[in-house]
Amino acid sequence: MNSCVLCHEDGGQILFKNDLYRIILVNDANYPGYLRIILNSHVKELTDLSDQDSIKVYEALLICERVVRDTMLADKINVASLGNVVPHLHWHIIPRYTNDLHFPNPIWGTATNNAYVPSGELLIRSKELAVKLIEKLAD
Amino acid sequence: MNSCVLCHEDGGQILFKNDLYRIILVNDANYPGYLRIILNSHVKELTDLSDQDSIKVYEALLICERVVRDTMLADKINVASLGNVVPHLHWHIIPRYTNDLHFPNPIWGTATNNAYVPSGELLIRSKELAVKLIEKLAD
Repeated sequence: MNSCVLCHEDGGQILFKNDLYRIILVNDANYPGYLRIILNSHVKELTDLSDQDSIKVYEALLICERVVRDTMLADKINVASLGNVVPHLHWHIIPRYTNDLHFPNPIWGTATNNAYVPSGELLIRSKELAVKLIEKLAD
Repeated sequence: MNSCVLCHEDGGQILFKNDLYRIILVNDANYPGYLRIILNSHVKELTDLSDQDSIKVYEALLICERVVRDTMLADKINVASLGNVVPHLHWHIIPRYTNDLHFPNPIWGTATNNAYVPSGELLIRSKELAVKLIEKLAD
């Protein structure tokens, strides 16, 4: 039995799940509307998937980015697959704003706007995002 | 005329170029074997491309990851499209080692191993990577 947290826990509020992956809304107080696509199986790198499955996951990434753009009205979307700490394949999809906690740094970099608190409007949009993504993926 | 640096400069040593994108070897003394795929046109987000073009770029990303894995023998590959500073679509493909300058943080995070210097072996592998990627993409 392995000790990987993403093998044993959902990793957040599941908005969608199929045989290959699940999409969760990340519980990060600084980044409303932050999504992760998490592979169900314990694979480490993108190229550990078949090309066909890898492209299926990428198509989900495009859907997530599109819905995040449409609902969160961010200044930039950041997308990353890192996995240095948890080497179980997952994509981060993060709406970024020029006044947010780390902008223009990645959210893993140095904080630049320490006084930042996401507006109530962003929290509302994050709820809309969850609804729209569920609708979109149910199609 | 825009001021985007990736519209006016190659952005590094070009290993491959087609109508849609170029692949460059990043000149980063701490991270030999670090590649970027840079779109030729000034687009900001993945979803600014047609799905067809977006998947073409993703297929190039998979080829890059595969060749980086095979030649750099990294402990993990990091992949990201951020663009907060230069909002011109580009993918980072970064071979990571458990003893490298920032591990397990992303390379944009806090340095953890300040004494790290890449081995000569990694510099040799980086040259092999360039050769193999050029061969692979010429197929």
